[in-house]
Amino acid sequence: MQELIPPARLLLGPGPSNAPYRVLRAMSTPVIGHLDPKFMEIMDEVCQLLRQTFRTQNQMTFPVSGTGSAGMEAALVNLLEPGDVAVIGVNGVFGARMCDVAERCGARVVKVEAEWGRIIEPERIIEAVRQNPGARLCALVHGETSTGILQPLEEVGAFLKDGDTLFLADAVTSLGGAPLEVDAWGIDACYSGTQKCLCVPPGLAPISFSPKAMAAIAKRKSKVQSWYLDVTMLQKYWSAGEGQRLYHHTAPISMIYALREGLRIIQEEGLSHRWERHAAAAGHLYQGLREMGFELWSQEGYRLPPLTAAKPPQGWDVEGIRKQLLGDYDIEVGGGLGPAAGKIWRIGLMGENACVQKVAVLLRALQDFA
Amino acid sequence: MQELIPPARLLLGPGPSNAPYRVLRAMSTPVIGHLDPKFMEIMDEVCQLLRQTFRTQNQMTFPVSGTGSAGMEAALVNLLEPGDVAVIGVNGVFGARMCDVAERCGARVVKVEAEWGRIIEPERIIEAVRQNPGARLCALVHGETSTGILQPLEEVGAFLKDGDTLFLADAVTSLGGAPLEVDAWGIDACYSGTQKCLCVPPGLAPISFSPKAMAAIAKRKSKVQSWYLDVTMLQKYWSAGEGQRLYHHTAPISMIYALREGLRIIQEEGLSHRWERHAAAAGHLYQGLREMGFELWSQEGYRLPPLTAAKPPQGWDVEGIRKQLLGDYDIEVGGGLGPAAGKIWRIGLMGENACVQKVAVLLRALQDFA
Repeated sequence: MQELIPPARLLLGPGPSNAPYRVLRAMSTPVIGHLDPKFMEIMDEVCQLLRQTFRTQNQMTFPVSGTGSAGMEAALVNLLEPGDVAVIGVNGVFGARMCDVAERCGARVVKVEAEWGRIIEPERIIEAVRQNPGARLCALVHGETSTGILQPLEEVGAFLKDGDTLFLADAVTSLGGAPLEVDAWGIDACYSGTQKCLCVPPGLAPISFSPKAMAAIAKRKSKVQSWYLDVTMLQKYWSAGEGQRLYHHTAPISMIYALREGLRIIQEEGLSHRWERHAAAAGHLYQGLREMGFELWSQEGYRLPPLTAAKPPQGWDVEGIRKQLLGDYDIEVGGGLGPAAGKIWRIGLMGENACVQKVAVLLRALQDFA
Repeated sequence: MQELIPPARLLLGPGPSNAPYRVLRAMSTPVIGHLDPKFMEIMDEVCQLLRQTFRTQNQMTFPVSGTGSAGMEAALVNLLEPGDVAVIGVNGVFGARMCDVAERCGARVVKVEAEWGRIIEPERIIEAVRQNPGARLCALVHGETSTGILQPLEEVGAFLKDGDTLFLADAVTSLGGAPLEVDAWGIDACYSGTQKCLCVPPGLAPISFSPKAMAAIAKRKSKVQSWYLDVTMLQKYWSAGEGQRLYHHTAPISMIYALREGLRIIQEEGLSHRWERHAAAAGHLYQGLREMGFELWSQEGYRLPPLTAAKPPQGWDVEGIRKQLLGDYDIEVGGGLGPAAGKIWRIGLMGENACVQKVAVLLRALQDFA
């Protein structure tokens, strides 16, 4: 079998995004042990950097040893027990996925649905929680990767803050690329993935649990159904004091090296500057796409800067041109999912790709099809 | 925060082992998308290399997107349903862990226990299955990392071959370092980790399911309780024909690059040569340790070549010297777990570390404490 020589792609799809050289270099640093005191320092650094990025003081903030969907599952299996009621917003693939995972936890799911490409009105979510007063959980997707929608969270968070219902947010495509304030918005559990705006290869799911969430987990009647994702055990490895850490499973060392470097880059840039840079790059893209006859597909005023859903001009071979972009130009953009399949593209400007240079490359390539 | 500069450790513990430069370099290859046709070729190559390494024709052979314990969980959540009976051998940490995971699946666990550091006699396992005729599963740890025992599997596999009970083997520490014949031994599900004898950083769990196991999974009455690890969905991504693959979750691209290179190195060396090399290195270690007054702790005739459990000479500060080896010599060896805590060391000679050079380094360093 030949040496690994994949093509050099410009990743402007829904993720993964291109990882900077610094991240790839850190990832390839020789491995040390998962119980090495030096590795424990690195773990503490990563947790601290994650807290800064999630904008939280939550002690239990760490990377789950799996991709973003493992983060979703980690949140739901820990927060839900059989018979619990979960109010879940569904306006795309990832809200629907949360329902599937929650049902596998034995929860009764109350869906609050909205059209794909539109937000779910906060008052409808609040109303659903009001009608299910014992609900254990209210879950929303902050950045819906399937539709390019940025769901407002503040109003729902403020409403839930004083009750017993926990507030869960999926920030896979928003963390590091759009404003997210875990503490200020009253979010009790929030997960993400490394391969979007953090610019780290896929493989880890940063997650954060509030003290309120951890207290609820401590009072569970049943064991968490996943051993691998059980935070009551994981906290003894990730969050115990010096000399107190207990082995749970072998942490993915190299991925954690990579995450540390990705987060260090974010810290150097500054989170608010990074949010602005993503918004500015998205603005350039919107303008260029409109000029070429693209229609911005997702609801105005609620567009997710790192991911733009756009409908190519009438007469374009939507899927054919997307394949040509990949094959001839080495540019990846994503196709539509579900009801949007074959109708839209999903264009990602995430992390280091959120810049006018990458927008220019894409727009110029598209001109060849106009 | 400073640049990442971990110490350069010689990893002679229970894993992770040192990854060769070729693997680290492959891992740091720029990322491509998880739905890129070129990535799908890489996936097929990795699955094919895994089949060769597991010695199986099983179509459903792929790397789970998590560490070895995720492989254990993937096997158990797919094979077990609430109310199923699972006969599980327990003579160390990982057998006990399988029981915990199986119980979280709602299974009734029948334990077949043996003293730590000894095998479980195959006839006792067979007897337990006989006494539980409807048992869904019989599970054994092939290489028990907590004790350095290599459990014989052939007799049990031959017994189970014609019945309905599925045979599961944990090969986390044996795959690529000790003889393992998934098909010839009648194993229906087998998982491993990348960070032991495959010499790839931790982060993936290679797994293989036989057609008999896949048929049993297809007949499940309930959904697999883990969405993330549900092979009925994962097979549509990993094992579908060209143009038929369905997105499930974003695969950990860089880890898969690394695994491909680790497996390519194994293919170049040849699996049986690699098994012999591990056995020869272990033999050198046994001799050197005995000469220094160490006692080989695990049952003679059933020692796991990649991992040697040894009791330091009388009067040695078992944990203190282990810490000094790490701090002063940059050599990691593992401590004992459970009943062996503070009493033994676990010395790993895995993958590229299974050679006389590494044995010599360790033995010479130990002389300084004699």
